[in-house]
Amino acid sequence: MNIREAMARYLPLIEEALQAALQTSHKTLAAHHGMMHYHLGWVDQRFQSKPAGGGKRLRPLLCLLACEAAGGDVQVALPAAAAIEILHNFSLVHDDIEDDSPTRRGRPAVWALWGVPQAINVGDALFALAHRTLGQLSEQDVPADRVLGATRAFHDTCVALTEGQYLDMSFEARLDVTVDEYMEMIRGKTAALMGLSTQLGALLAGAPAGRIGHFHRFGRMLGIAFQIEDDILGIWGDEALTGKSAASDILERKKTLPVVYALQSAVGERLRAIYQKRELTPEDTPSVLVLLEEVHARGYAKRLAEEALHQALEALAATGLGEAALAPLGELAALLQGRRR
Amino acid sequence: MNIREAMARYLPLIEEALQAALQTSHKTLAAHHGMMHYHLGWVDQRFQSKPAGGGKRLRPLLCLLACEAAGGDVQVALPAAAAIEILHNFSLVHDDIEDDSPTRRGRPAVWALWGVPQAINVGDALFALAHRTLGQLSEQDVPADRVLGATRAFHDTCVALTEGQYLDMSFEARLDVTVDEYMEMIRGKTAALMGLSTQLGALLAGAPAGRIGHFHRFGRMLGIAFQIEDDILGIWGDEALTGKSAASDILERKKTLPVVYALQSAVGERLRAIYQKRELTPEDTPSVLVLLEEVHARGYAKRLAEEALHQALEALAATGLGEAALAPLGELAALLQGRRR
Repeated sequence: MNIREAMARYLPLIEEALQAALQTSHKTLAAHHGMMHYHLGWVDQRFQSKPAGGGKRLRPLLCLLACEAAGGDVQVALPAAAAIEILHNFSLVHDDIEDDSPTRRGRPAVWALWGVPQAINVGDALFALAHRTLGQLSEQDVPADRVLGATRAFHDTCVALTEGQYLDMSFEARLDVTVDEYMEMIRGKTAALMGLSTQLGALLAGAPAGRIGHFHRFGRMLGIAFQIEDDILGIWGDEALTGKSAASDILERKKTLPVVYALQSAVGERLRAIYQKRELTPEDTPSVLVLLEEVHARGYAKRLAEEALHQALEALAATGLGEAALAPLGELAALLQGRRR
Repeated sequence: MNIREAMARYLPLIEEALQAALQTSHKTLAAHHGMMHYHLGWVDQRFQSKPAGGGKRLRPLLCLLACEAAGGDVQVALPAAAAIEILHNFSLVHDDIEDDSPTRRGRPAVWALWGVPQAINVGDALFALAHRTLGQLSEQDVPADRVLGATRAFHDTCVALTEGQYLDMSFEARLDVTVDEYMEMIRGKTAALMGLSTQLGALLAGAPAGRIGHFHRFGRMLGIAFQIEDDILGIWGDEALTGKSAASDILERKKTLPVVYALQSAVGERLRAIYQKRELTPEDTPSVLVLLEEVHARGYAKRLAEEALHQALEALAATGLGEAALAPLGELAALLQGRRR
């Protein structure tokens, strides 16, 4: 099975599990669920069925592919895959409020349509439903110790997500963030959830502990590569493809890897002088880009992303499974790294 | 044991469990946890140890008292008690943002000190930590089916909380809310969590299903009585005792029981005329109070609260346990109903 075949087979399963998890029969709660369905890309802002880009379902796909690669039954991992995607979407709904981002996947963000109070609650509802969805594991024929292990890892990831988010926000006001601090932040913010995806897939397949560890590391390192690529796109990405305005990360003073690196380099002082201004305007971005160029910040970030991808693929190979079993995951990693180029 | 003795014994245990659940050893996360500790009433806004009113710990107390009344070991129920209190505090941190309430327990709310983005994330962190704390049940010597039952009830309550909160917010813009809709809202918003407290206490004590059901109902009906009393205080409460300005619920157009009742009564049209105004000012409150008085809305709400309390005590008696075992819970219910009079 190649990655295209795997996606054709698994994406509909994932979508079905997500819809089952987010359904309600209570008429009074129709709009509450409608806002969630909007965010997931199933309906428009009047809650009329109208498919829109609701995300790539990357994490649940990683979960099911890891489960299959490790020789498990993907049906068993499906509640975990759905729970992970719902958890991811909870974090996006709250991130958009926290970052004051009015759009998500080319449409208005939940808060921009229904206000911050309802959007906070929509995120909370997704958070609550993610846990309840994971709880379905114990209603299947899964050994109790695997359910327990999956639940514990899920809880730890939820905590890590909020820690990563805290660091990300606290960095905005700082100009002395180190690369080590940056790595700590993205470990919580991005790598933890992608690591959880492959970890739970392998765990629920009944893989031995060592092999679960390799799958976990594969997901985490892939997450780090993914985040650094995202950082690069946030500065040099094509507006038409990324769906957000070019260099928006500069205007928001985001401490992404190229900036963190440049702030610690020979141009640090000049870059700080710009970032210390009370207000950053689009007119400031060319001078920032020139400084980043001077120290080859893009190339530096690119190298770190490639190194992380390399480590991810090493971890995948270390699972000791056959090439055929691992092929879809390897292809997915390659697709991700090549996205939007 | 009377309620004073029970509080003297259990409140320190609860505080200790809460502190263990919300600790961190990571220096970079000190402020992240500091904000949580501030909300819990342990530190001031500079994160210096300074006990302040952090809440009555009513819900964990109900949980431990129900466990003890049902013949269980309170140590076993302690993770559930702590998880419930953390969950409650998650909802308060987000409620304060959603309601635009700048104070909580006589001090600035988290969002008023550290901004909305960090406050959203502090609430999320408490939500995540509540689940992780409940997860400690499976590390104790508790039969697996009890852990599973407790976890499922916890998940359902989290979902119910967000549903109640949705209804509460959606009611603000409406003038046709019925008493039935109001009851549905407070079942989610208040009764679900207090019901969970007594339910889990009895469940973890190993009580038979029927008895757990009576404990559950006791908590739920007590929650309904508690919420209606709160509604009365939100309109006629003494500012010095409630910590929020008198009649603040009127200015915020809160659809609390006295208002919902009056909107459906003979003064409904006149009341709607006031509530339809674009802006409500303190000058409007006397006319609202006169209309509420005309249909005896306060007495109506008071009767419903007393009826709910009566049903709570009937459910408590229906557990079939001895008077001595139930005394602390009965006394706690009486204390609650008499609070701030």
